[in-house]
Amino acid sequence: MFKGFASDNNSGVHPSILRAMEDANHGHVVGYGNDPFTAKAIDIFKEKFGAATEVFFVFNGTGANVLSLSTLTQSFNSVICAETAHIQEDECGAPEKFTGCKLIPVEPVNGKVTSEAVLPHLKGFDFEHHSQPKVISISQVTEMGTVYSPGEIKTLADLAHKHQMYLHMDGARISNAAIALDMDFREFTVDCGVDVLSFGGTKNGMMMGEAVLFFNPDLTKQTKYLRKQSMQLYSKMRYVGAQFIVYLENDLWKETASHSNKMAKLLEAEVAKIPQIKITQPVSANGVFAIVPKEIIEPLRERFFFYTWDEINSEVRWMTSFDTTEDEIYAFVELIKELLN
Amino acid sequence: MFKGFASDNNSGVHPSILRAMEDANHGHVVGYGNDPFTAKAIDIFKEKFGAATEVFFVFNGTGANVLSLSTLTQSFNSVICAETAHIQEDECGAPEKFTGCKLIPVEPVNGKVTSEAVLPHLKGFDFEHHSQPKVISISQVTEMGTVYSPGEIKTLADLAHKHQMYLHMDGARISNAAIALDMDFREFTVDCGVDVLSFGGTKNGMMMGEAVLFFNPDLTKQTKYLRKQSMQLYSKMRYVGAQFIVYLENDLWKETASHSNKMAKLLEAEVAKIPQIKITQPVSANGVFAIVPKEIIEPLRERFFFYTWDEINSEVRWMTSFDTTEDEIYAFVELIKELLN
Amino acid sequence: MFKGFASDNNSGVHPSILRAMEDANHGHVVGYGNDPFTAKAIDIFKEKFGAATEVFFVFNGTGANVLSLSTLTQSFNSVICAETAHIQEDECGAPEKFTGCKLIPVEPVNGKVTSEAVLPHLKGFDFEHHSQPKVISISQVTEMGTVYSPGEIKTLADLAHKHQMYLHMDGARISNAAIALDMDFREFTVDCGVDVLSFGGTKNGMMMGEAVLFFNPDLTKQTKYLRKQSMQLYSKMRYVGAQFIVYLENDLWKETASHSNKMAKLLEAEVAKIPQIKITQPVSANGVFAIVPKEIIEPLRERFFFYTWDEINSEVRWMTSFDTTEDEIYAFVELIKELLN
Amino acid sequence: MFKGFASDNNSGVHPSILRAMEDANHGHVVGYGNDPFTAKAIDIFKEKFGAATEVFFVFNGTGANVLSLSTLTQSFNSVICAETAHIQEDECGAPEKFTGCKLIPVEPVNGKVTSEAVLPHLKGFDFEHHSQPKVISISQVTEMGTVYSPGEIKTLADLAHKHQMYLHMDGARISNAAIALDMDFREFTVDCGVDVLSFGGTKNGMMMGEAVLFFNPDLTKQTKYLRKQSMQLYSKMRYVGAQFIVYLENDLWKETASHSNKMAKLLEAEVAKIPQIKITQPVSANGVFAIVPKEIIEPLRERFFFYTWDEINSEVRWMTSFDTTEDEIYAFVELIKELLN
Repeated sequence: MFKGFASDNNSGVHPSILRAMEDANHGHVVGYGNDPFTAKAIDIFKEKFGAATEVFFVFNGTGANVLSLSTLTQSFNSVICAETAHIQEDECGAPEKFTGCKLIPVEPVNGKVTSEAVLPHLKGFDFEHHSQPKVISISQVTEMGTVYSPGEIKTLADLAHKHQMYLHMDGARISNAAIALDMDFREFTVDCGVDVLSFGGTKNGMMMGEAVLFFNPDLTKQTKYLRKQSMQLYSKMRYVGAQFIVYLENDLWKETASHSNKMAKLLEAEVAKIPQIKITQPVSANGVFAIVPKEIIEPLRERFFFYTWDEINSEVRWMTSFDTTEDEIYAFVELIKELLN
Repeated sequence: MFKGFASDNNSGVHPSILRAMEDANHGHVVGYGNDPFTAKAIDIFKEKFGAATEVFFVFNGTGANVLSLSTLTQSFNSVICAETAHIQEDECGAPEKFTGCKLIPVEPVNGKVTSEAVLPHLKGFDFEHHSQPKVISISQVTEMGTVYSPGEIKTLADLAHKHQMYLHMDGARISNAAIALDMDFREFTVDCGVDVLSFGGTKNGMMMGEAVLFFNPDLTKQTKYLRKQSMQLYSKMRYVGAQFIVYLENDLWKETASHSNKMAKLLEAEVAKIPQIKITQPVSANGVFAIVPKEIIEPLRERFFFYTWDEINSEVRWMTSFDTTEDEIYAFVELIKELLN
Repeated sequence: MFKGFASDNNSGVHPSILRAMEDANHGHVVGYGNDPFTAKAIDIFKEKFGAATEVFFVFNGTGANVLSLSTLTQSFNSVICAETAHIQEDECGAPEKFTGCKLIPVEPVNGKVTSEAVLPHLKGFDFEHHSQPKVISISQVTEMGTVYSPGEIKTLADLAHKHQMYLHMDGARISNAAIALDMDFREFTVDCGVDVLSFGGTKNGMMMGEAVLFFNPDLTKQTKYLRKQSMQLYSKMRYVGAQFIVYLENDLWKETASHSNKMAKLLEAEVAKIPQIKITQPVSANGVFAIVPKEIIEPLRERFFFYTWDEINSEVRWMTSFDTTEDEIYAFVELIKELLN
Repeated sequence: MFKGFASDNNSGVHPSILRAMEDANHGHVVGYGNDPFTAKAIDIFKEKFGAATEVFFVFNGTGANVLSLSTLTQSFNSVICAETAHIQEDECGAPEKFTGCKLIPVEPVNGKVTSEAVLPHLKGFDFEHHSQPKVISISQVTEMGTVYSPGEIKTLADLAHKHQMYLHMDGARISNAAIALDMDFREFTVDCGVDVLSFGGTKNGMMMGEAVLFFNPDLTKQTKYLRKQSMQLYSKMRYVGAQFIVYLENDLWKETASHSNKMAKLLEAEVAKIPQIKITQPVSANGVFAIVPKEIIEPLRERFFFYTWDEINSEVRWMTSFDTTEDEIYAFVELIKELLN
C-alpha cells in the first residue's frame, strides 16, 4: 500500500534516529534526565537558542504545550489562540484540565493569529470577575500549513509583553517552518520575543519526545515539578536525548524537513494543474489544503490515506513527510486525474 | 446619593425577605439542609417545576452554574455558550477550573445563542482528540437584557438532545424573564426541554442563595458531593430556604420583577426621546443598553453609578432594580438632558 | 423539642447579628465588597490583627480553608494536617480538587498536630518526584475540642518557616479558643507566626460568612482572583461586613463564645459525676467528647440530637452553642441518668 | 564504571526490544493506536488476561496509574494506598491533580496494604462531607520489594467489592512478581479480583510505554478521552505495540525478570554473610533493602550508584536489573567487605 498523506506522524522513524538510540543503549545511566545524553542535547539547544535557554524534555506535543502553559499561568488566567490551534481543537481539553485556565479562541487569517483578533480580548485586567489574559499562543507552522514571518511574530510578542503577557509558540512542525523561512530557529523565535517554545521532532522523523524551551530562566523555578505532576517525566530519558543530539547536531532536521516541504511544493504544483481542485491555503511547509470534488474523496482515500479537514466544504488536508517520494506524489496525482474522468 | 443603575445586586434585600429570615431564627435545626425550611422550599419548587425536580441550594450564581455544569459533564467535555455569557466572561474561569471542561464561546444575536452558531461546533463526537460537546448553556434573561422565547429555547433543547447533550439555563434573572414573557417558570424551562436551571433570586430582592434545579433526577446521584466539594454547601441552610419560601409562595418574585421591568421600560421610553442616545438592544427585562456621548458618562456616573459595557463604542448598561423609583428614573433622565446641553 | 448538642451551627443567629443586617439594608451600595460595611469590617480586623493584615470575606469555612491553601500553594505542593482535620475529613476533597495539592494526614495528640508527627514528612525538598511540603495546617479549636497553647503554635510556625513553609490556622471556632486562652486573637495567631487564618463566626452566632486573614500582604496578589474562581465572592457582601462589624466591634464574639464554653464546662462537670461515662478529651472550648454506654445513645438522641463521633468506641460529641441554656444541660444530664437506670 | 544498583530503570533496553522497534520501522501506519502492531499487542494481552480485557497504552507508570484512577473515580472519591505507594510518594501529586481525589495513605506491613489498615477508612459512605472511598490501590511488587500472595490480593479485592469499590494494582514490576510467585499474570490479578492493572515493562528491559488493563469493559467508555486529556496518547504508538509483542509473545519478560530476581537473591545471600549489614525486608523480587553502616555508604556509592531509602535509619535500597551480572554482585560485595575493614 502507498504511504498516504494522512499525517507526518504516520511515517516511521528516520534510520539515523534509530541508530542513535541503539548507540545510546549501553550500560547504566541515571534515570529521569541526569544522564550524559540528555545533558548533551540540552547543551546543543543552548547553543542554538542562547545560553539562557532552559530545556525540559517531555513525551509528546500535548505534554509540551501543557507544560509551557502551566509554567506561564495561574488557574485564573486566559490563553488566547487561533480557533484552529492544536491546543484548542485537538488536545481534548488537556490545557484547561491541567492549568484550569480559559482558552479564548480567535478567528485566524490563513491559520494565523492577528493583533486585530487578539486586541478585543485584552481587557478586564485587574478585574477579578474576568479571567486574566496571560498568554498568546501561536503555532509555527500553523495548523493550516502556513508560516508566520518574523515580523508577524514580533508584533504579537510586543503586544503580549506590553500587557505583561507571554508569547508561546507550538513548534510541532518548527523544522518545516525554519526551512520555509530559510532561517535559523532562533531568528524567528527567541529573537522575535517568543517566551516559550514547544519544540517538536516527532512529526519530522523522530520517534517520540519533544523539548520545551524557556528563554527566560526566571520562569522555570517550578517547571520540573509541573513536568512530573503532568506525567511527562520520562525515566529512560537518554533515549530522547540521543534522538535530539543526532537530530540537531548534524542538521538531520534540515534534511528531513527540506524534503517534506519540497514534496508538498511538488504536490501543490501538480495539483494546481487540475482545474477541479482548488488549493485553499498558501503552501509554505509540508501541508496542502485543497477543496476537491466530493465523489473522488473516498476512492482516493482507499489507496492513499488522508483526512478530510472540513466536511461541509469538501476540504481535505494532505501532509507530506520526510519519507514521501516523488513517485508517490506522481502516482497520487495520476489517481486523482483518473478518478476525475 | 441616588441609587444608580449599576446592577440589580447593588440593591438591598426586600423587607419581606428579611422578615422571613428573622421568623426562621428560632431554636435549633439540623444543619446543611436537613431542616424544615429547606424541605418546604424544595416542595414549593417541585410544585412549580414538577414533582421530578431535584433541588440543590448553593450560595451564589457562579456556584449554581458550576454545580450545574459539573453534574452534567466529565472533564473531557465542552460547553457551548454565548461570547457574552456570564460563565464565559464573568466567573474568572470557575467553570474550567472546577469542571476541567472547555468552554466554546459563540457569537450571539442580541445576546442569544442561535442554532446556526452552535451547529459548526457539534463535531468531533467519538473522536478522542476533541473535547466532546455535552452542554449548551444559555442565560435567561441574557446578559444583553433580552429574553428567549419558548420556541427559541425548545429549538436549542432539541438540538442538544439530538446529540445526547444537555441544555443548561443560567436563570440569574429568571423572574424578570417570566414577567417579560408573562408565563409561569416551567412554561419556558422544563416544558421547553431545559435539563438544568440555575434559579437565581439575589438580583431580584433576595439576600443570597440560589437554587439549582435538575429536571431529570437520574442526573443527580453525585450532585450532593459535587456541591460540598465546590464549597457551596451552606451550614445554616434554613436562611436560604426561608427566603425562597416567601419569594415563591406569595409571588414576591412577581412583585419585585414586575417593578424592575417596568422601571426599565420607563427608562427606555424616556431615553428614546433623546436623539443623542441610541438604545442598542430590545428592552425586555430590567436592563437598558445604550450608546451615549462619551463626554457625559463620567459626570452622569458621579451622581448615578453604572457600568460601561463597551468602552470602544461608548455603550453603557443601566440596570433597574426592585427598589428603583420613578423619581429616580426621571431625575436621571433630567441629568442626561442637562449634561447634553 | 430541646435544642440538642449536635453542632454549634444547628443554632440560629444572635439577635444583634440579625439587627445589624437589617440596619445595613438601606439604599444601594456597590457589590462584591466595594461597600462601606465591608470596608469598615476590614478596618476592624486590621485593628485587631495588625495593619498589614489583608482580609478576604468568603461564604463558608470550607471556602475559607480552600482560599487560604490555594493562595499559599502551587499544585505540586503538599499540606500537612491532623488526621482529624476538617480539611482532611469533612470537606469532601475540596482542598485537593481546587488546589491540586496532596494532603498529608498525621496522627494527632488530643486533636493537635505535633512537631514529632510533622518532622518525618519534611523531606523530599527539591526532589521533583515528591510533592513539595508547603503548609502545616492546624485547627484552633481542634476538631477534638482542645486548644493549642501559644507555645505550641509558635513551635509549629517556627518549624514551618524553617523549611520555607507556611502555617495555616483553621479558626472556625477561634472565638471559643480566645475565651479558653483568655487572650486577644492576635496573641495566639499572628504573634505566634501564623501566616494565614480562616476566621469563622458562623459557629458562634453569625449567619454566614468567614474571613480569610493574611498576615503577609506579599502573599495576596492573586487572592482576589482565586476567591472569584473558587465561587466564594459574594455580590451583596455588605451583609457579611455588617455582621462582622457588630461581632467584633462590641465584643459580641466574647459574649457568645464565653457562654458556650461555660455551658460545655457545666456539661463536663455534671457528666463527670456519672461513673458510666468517660470524658475522652480535655474540655477547653465548647465541645465535650465522651464514651457512653451504647444502649442509651439512641433514646438520648431522640430527645437531644447529637452525633456519634466514633461508632466503634461508642464515643459521642456534644457541642454547646451561644444559645444553650443551663436548663437544657440539666435536663440532658437528668435524662442520661434516667436512661442509665 | 559499574552499573550500580540504583534502579531498574537506569538500565538500558534489551536488544530484542530494540530489534522489534527497528522491525516495526517500515512504511506508514495510522497514528494514535490504529496500527497493526498495537492491535496485535492488544490481542496478546487479551489472550493472557481474558477476552474481556480492555487495553490502553500510555507513556509511563505515572500516566498508567493516573489513567487507572481517573477512569475509576469521580473527583469526590478517595483512594486508599500504602504510605510507601508510588502514587503517594513518588508522583508529585499527579493523582490528586488530575483526578481531584483524596489519597488516604495507610501504614503498610512489609510494604503491603492490609485489610486491618484499610477498614477504619471504609466509612462516611453516602455522607456528603466525606470523600467517598472508591479504590484500594496496591503495588505488585511493592515498593519494599515484597510480593502479595494471591490470597492477600483476593482478600483486598473482596473487601473493595463489598463496598462497591475497586482494586487497582500498580504493576510497574509485575513481571518480577510473576516470577517470584511462579504464576501466570492472570492468576494473581484478574483471577483474584483486580479490576484495573498498570502493567509495566520499562523497569524490566523495555524502552518506554506501559499498558493499562481494565478487566471490566463497562468501566472504559470514557477512558480514551481521559488518556488523551492526560497527555498520554502516543502518536507513533506502533513503537510501544512492537515492544509489547516481543516482550510477551516469546516470554522475554520471563527471561529478564527471572534474571534480575536471581541476581537479587544472590546479592541477598552474599550480603547475609556480612554481620554488619541487616536485611530489612523479605527479598522476593529484584530489590534488596538493608541497613548498612553509615560510613560506608558514600564510598560504596562512588563505585556503584544506589539510593538511600531512609536517611535516619541508614537503610538503603539495591535494585538489580535484567542486565546485572554475577560479577557485579561479587565485586559489589567485595567492596562492601573492604570498606567495612
